[in-house]
Amino acid sequence: MLFHIRMDVNLPSTMPPEQSAQLKADEKAMFQGLQASGKWRHIWRIAGHYANISVFDVASVEELHATLSALPLFPYMTIAIAPLCRHPSSLHEDDR
Amino acid sequence: MLFHIRMDVNLPSTMPPEQSAQLKADEKAMFQGLQASGKWRHIWRIAGHYANISVFDVASVEELHATLSALPLFPYMTIAIAPLCRHPSSLHEDDR
Amino acid sequence: MLFHIRMDVNLPSTMPPEQSAQLKADEKAMFQGLQASGKWRHIWRIAGHYANISVFDVASVEELHATLSALPLFPYMTIAIAPLCRHPSSLHEDDR
Amino acid sequence: MLFHIRMDVNLPSTMPPEQSAQLKADEKAMFQGLQASGKWRHIWRIAGHYANISVFDVASVEELHATLSALPLFPYMTIAIAPLCRHPSSLHEDDR
Amino acid sequence: MLFHIRMDVNLPSTMPPEQSAQLKADEKAMFQGLQASGKWRHIWRIAGHYANISVFDVASVEELHATLSALPLFPYMTIAIAPLCRHPSSLHEDDR
Amino acid sequence: MLFHIRMDVNLPSTMPPEQSAQLKADEKAMFQGLQASGKWRHIWRIAGHYANISVFDVASVEELHATLSALPLFPYMTIAIAPLCRHPSSLHEDDR
Amino acid sequence: MLFHIRMDVNLPSTMPPEQSAQLKADEKAMFQGLQASGKWRHIWRIAGHYANISVFDVASVEELHATLSALPLFPYMTIAIAPLCRHPSSLHEDDR
Amino acid sequence: MLFHIRMDVNLPSTMPPEQSAQLKADEKAMFQGLQASGKWRHIWRIAGHYANISVFDVASVEELHATLSALPLFPYMTIAIAPLCRHPSSLHEDDR
Amino acid sequence: MLFHIRMDVNLPSTMPPEQSAQLKADEKAMFQGLQASGKWRHIWRIAGHYANISVFDVASVEELHATLSALPLFPYMTIAIAPLCRHPSSLHEDDR
Amino acid sequence: MLFHIRMDVNLPSTMPPEQSAQLKADEKAMFQGLQASGKWRHIWRIAGHYANISVFDVASVEELHATLSALPLFPYMTIAIAPLCRHPSSLHEDDR
Repeated sequence: MLFHIRMDVNLPSTMPPEQSAQLKADEKAMFQGLQASGKWRHIWRIAGHYANISVFDVASVEELHATLSALPLFPYMTIAIAPLCRHPSSLHEDDR
Repeated sequence: MLFHIRMDVNLPSTMPPEQSAQLKADEKAMFQGLQASGKWRHIWRIAGHYANISVFDVASVEELHATLSALPLFPYMTIAIAPLCRHPSSLHEDDR
Repeated sequence: MLFHIRMDVNLPSTMPPEQSAQLKADEKAMFQGLQASGKWRHIWRIAGHYANISVFDVASVEELHATLSALPLFPYMTIAIAPLCRHPSSLHEDDR
Repeated sequence: MLFHIRMDVNLPSTMPPEQSAQLKADEKAMFQGLQASGKWRHIWRIAGHYANISVFDVASVEELHATLSALPLFPYMTIAIAPLCRHPSSLHEDDR
Repeated sequence: MLFHIRMDVNLPSTMPPEQSAQLKADEKAMFQGLQASGKWRHIWRIAGHYANISVFDVASVEELHATLSALPLFPYMTIAIAPLCRHPSSLHEDDR
Repeated sequence: MLFHIRMDVNLPSTMPPEQSAQLKADEKAMFQGLQASGKWRHIWRIAGHYANISVFDVASVEELHATLSALPLFPYMTIAIAPLCRHPSSLHEDDR
Repeated sequence: MLFHIRMDVNLPSTMPPEQSAQLKADEKAMFQGLQASGKWRHIWRIAGHYANISVFDVASVEELHATLSALPLFPYMTIAIAPLCRHPSSLHEDDR
Repeated sequence: MLFHIRMDVNLPSTMPPEQSAQLKADEKAMFQGLQASGKWRHIWRIAGHYANISVFDVASVEELHATLSALPLFPYMTIAIAPLCRHPSSLHEDDR
Repeated sequence: MLFHIRMDVNLPSTMPPEQSAQLKADEKAMFQGLQASGKWRHIWRIAGHYANISVFDVASVEELHATLSALPLFPYMTIAIAPLCRHPSSLHEDDR
Repeated sequence: MLFHIRMDVNLPSTMPPEQSAQLKADEKAMFQGLQASGKWRHIWRIAGHYANISVFDVASVEELHATLSALPLFPYMTIAIAPLCRHPSSLHEDDR
């Protein structure tokens, strides 16, 4: 089941550099595990922004929320979610 | 070069059904040619909306505009565009 | 799987009364079938608006979109969707 | 009498962890009392957000405000309220 | 029970003058009955707008919706509602 | 002369409790003097918000501004103002 | 008493040219009377818009509304109003 | 050449009172020089706000920016600018 | 004197094709005269939109408004204007 | 390939003056290198704002993002991007 997600990251300017570096390293590690598993199906950087566009492929809304809220940067993100379907005009049986 | 595009379609309620059917058939045909060529890289329906999320893979901004403005439904679309890059945390060399 | 949905209905003021009456009757019939099946889990009228707040309980995003887009009033609705989870503080195992 | 309420929680990033833990524990305890009494009729987590959608069933607007403003997290919440009615198409006499 | 209501009226410019005159006369008659009964507790014109600020004093949300949706101009109004309470600093026991 | 005023209060979370308590006590005292004089004609709490809806009855715009800007909580308020008139449909000669 | 007013005019594209010409001529005549009387104290065209910024000098909110709602173009205007005072830093006793 | 300018001032609540008093005194002095020279052609306080509506009469956009950015309160202002022309319906040859 | 201008064009879907073709041809002719004269200093198409970003180089705000309001498509445009200056960091004495 | 970029700069009021001076000097140096290379094709100050309008001429979206995110002021900027094309009505073969 696919969800389109935009994440904008806002770290407070008062956060010590070592804390933000640790958060980003932890985020990257967790992301790569999810990417390898196929659950974090797509990710792109939005040019000119500390933000990404992602597509999640998860089994349920519960898994969607559990995954997002476990991200180390979750407390510093603004998140927008849209549920996605296969488009009826597509040539493919399955667009993930 | 990747661009994230959201297209919302608004056909006037006064349009005759045969005109809208023809427009949609023409749109589908042009879309499928672009999908087959790899230029219309991704498309998903946004649940509950007459709208899609797409990713275009084109050689230039000129090609992006020429492709969009040639779509039969272009005069009835609201379009939002964001340029995309490979995300630096990705496990893949190339995310299209 | 639960989705929170707000539907605002806007019928054009030029629609003939018999057409809008038929649309509303068809909408009511389809709604009641979905309510009886448990898929349209909750519905409330928003006071002072031609709008409702609903909770859908469906098996997938595809079923969500198929159900919404089959509604007779769908072409005249503005729809906003938010995926819902059980709240971790709830006393109940399952809140539908 | 039913009210639809969305609550978004924003704790300042400078709040000491023990203070936020205490606030959340107090909030949970008060919530569960209200849920058990039937006044906090529904609650769901909005996926991807530190926010909930709730339905309150209270005797008056005064009770609505007294309940909300007594919540431990009230000073940190953005709240949106919509009064709700039974929907005229519903199969049920009473939808709470 | 008090509700603060703003009503903005938008009649289509294509409506025949006799129809809008009849609608306004019907609206005025129904309004005056509600004002006399005490349910439409306050009304003011907003300077420079075809709009009013009102305070309703009704027994329930159901009565609020039934009253608003029965107004002849209801299909042409944009309505915003906020539930009101007595203010704790007021010198009066009851502010209606 | 009547003005409709909405005041939303935002005290910084870093303000010492004794300072906010003093500000609120001073605000209440000044409010009650204005209410007794008839200048602060109406006040209601908006349910679920640290905000009020008020109607001022003042002799001039200068008096309106002087009164508002002298309030102890003025530096912490977001204020929205709309000039009001008697509504032409009202049964009363004077609606204050 | 001074009010700052922005008026944006939107004539429907279906209005016959002679009707819009008549409306504009009537508007101009009424405007010039009000300008000569001193009530329409200032007027400027906003560059690039069919809109003006004006300052009215009227005796009351009632006169403000009566003047605006009598304008021939009133049904086609979007109006925004802000009450104005003399600025405390001004070198002049009276800024109109 | 005329420009319509709205300035909203937001001083941080943490600024020491003597610093804000100095800033305001410097601002007033610079303002009065510009008012005396005719460049700051009009100024009014917006009732209920720490904000003003002004009209500048300057020789160029460069002078407009140089004047605004030299104001002591400039770093704390939100500024909105609209270029103004003489209105074609005005009775006067020159409206400044 | 430079002004940054965004123009979005919205032709009504009911306009006969020959009328819109004539309007566009007239617009193009007038544009090219202004481009040749140096007054319409820059123009770019915004990809995916029937809209342009332009920079005008005119002698006064009056000339800016006279030029814009004489465009054949002016009644169908939404226009946003920002006055521009040379940037202080630029290597050039004059950036037009 | 052209991109239209608006950059609004917001430095925290708590930043020490020497730090902001250093950031601005570094920004200016990097900007001038990019301007000299032709990649930062245009820049203008927006009158009355700590903001600029720029046009970038880069080989790819990746270069666009790499350039923007390397700017010393990038963490303090709000950035809006629109891809640009040559306008079909232009007299020139190439508008950069």
